[in-house]
Amino acid sequence: MAIRYKVTLAYDGTAFAGFQVQPHQRTVQGVLERAVNHLNKSSDYVHVFGSGRTDAGVHAVGQVIHFDLVNDIPDQGIINGLNSLLPLDIEIKMAEHVTADFHAQFTAHGKRYVYRVSQTKAVNPFKRFYTGHYKYPLEVNLIKTALKDVVGTHDFSSFVASGSQTKSHIRTIYTATVKELPQEKELVFEFYGNGFLYNQVRIMVAALLEIGSKRRPVHDFLRLYQVKDRNECRGTAPASGLYLKEVVYQPDK
Amino acid sequence: MAIRYKVTLAYDGTAFAGFQVQPHQRTVQGVLERAVNHLNKSSDYVHVFGSGRTDAGVHAVGQVIHFDLVNDIPDQGIINGLNSLLPLDIEIKMAEHVTADFHAQFTAHGKRYVYRVSQTKAVNPFKRFYTGHYKYPLEVNLIKTALKDVVGTHDFSSFVASGSQTKSHIRTIYTATVKELPQEKELVFEFYGNGFLYNQVRIMVAALLEIGSKRRPVHDFLRLYQVKDRNECRGTAPASGLYLKEVVYQPDK
Repeated sequence: MAIRYKVTLAYDGTAFAGFQVQPHQRTVQGVLERAVNHLNKSSDYVHVFGSGRTDAGVHAVGQVIHFDLVNDIPDQGIINGLNSLLPLDIEIKMAEHVTADFHAQFTAHGKRYVYRVSQTKAVNPFKRFYTGHYKYPLEVNLIKTALKDVVGTHDFSSFVASGSQTKSHIRTIYTATVKELPQEKELVFEFYGNGFLYNQVRIMVAALLEIGSKRRPVHDFLRLYQVKDRNECRGTAPASGLYLKEVVYQPDK
Repeated sequence: MAIRYKVTLAYDGTAFAGFQVQPHQRTVQGVLERAVNHLNKSSDYVHVFGSGRTDAGVHAVGQVIHFDLVNDIPDQGIINGLNSLLPLDIEIKMAEHVTADFHAQFTAHGKRYVYRVSQTKAVNPFKRFYTGHYKYPLEVNLIKTALKDVVGTHDFSSFVASGSQTKSHIRTIYTATVKELPQEKELVFEFYGNGFLYNQVRIMVAALLEIGSKRRPVHDFLRLYQVKDRNECRGTAPASGLYLKEVVYQPDK
């Protein structure tokens, strides 16, 4: 009888070709599967299931995976064992024994994403892989007004990249906030929703920055929900600013 | 008549083989010279002089260079011009016209270095190139006591890497501090002195961390000044934690 483990991890997405396994590419899932299979006592190949993909260059501070092993390893042993096998751009933060009905993707209630925008004129060398960059002046109050239109259940067809294979583009965003960090010269967005389409957060952030710099009307999201046309939202904020912060499994948490 | 420019810059040292030009290597000086020569109207090759070298992986937030151009370019034009020519891991922060007696290295009065130590158990993926890492518990008060022995004029022969070509190992350290950042789980050292030997800061930090974790007596620096033996100080803290913060030219500043 296999034992299912839920594991929470962080990774610097810079040197990965995204989460999902791809032939001849260094991916988070591929690197994790190699390490997890070292821990397994059976010769069967162990697959690692993530809460969802992240693109090349996108980071995670709270990605969740699950996998099954034939052997029972204490939670701290999973953490130490995997951290000693993994490269330094992945860090295992938590491990838990879970029942077989837990699934990292299908039992998730929601996800929390953060997007960091650096607002300096020139790119800060230490942030080039860890933030987006926007050099035009922003009126943050306009962005805050627009974020009220983001919250709720909407058809996000205008905000989905062309590679998406999802049928329904209706998603619910529970909270959407922005805060200014004047010392760091950063603007930090946070979105919490029941799920996000391919590139949705990055496309929304690009549109929100255009609203903040008055390149787009403040309530343009209401129009964009109606037109359902990706061409109305050309920009996509860079992968470097995006962090999968948390996957939530208990709605009451 | 050539015009001398003093330029202050930051760089992420991760992808550079150090500051100084080396054949077939990507160095800060080499990348800067290519950009600076684009700005020069004469066909003579323009050399860039730094305040001193930094090793591979060592960062700078306030490195200073000087160079001479035949043409007079406004300070802001130097900043914008170089930033548009340089890769994103170098950022020009300031430019000034200076007189011909200014020399980035020889007229410097002192240098300020910062060393960041990450104190988490596992390496934080986002800090692996930007901090040193020490997982043992530290008594910071012991380090603070030891730092009082660091301040002053001493023979730092025990703290110099074998590659050094300097004759005198006597240097003066004006201030040496450490602060704890509990939220970031970091310990941040700052050293201000009239000059530093090859690897001196990194060797001192390694010894200070050994003092903080009781692997070395608290006043061991007094003994190390006497024995003048690098073998008594085996450790060298990693390059990733070291930042050249400031080069000071006016002693009263």
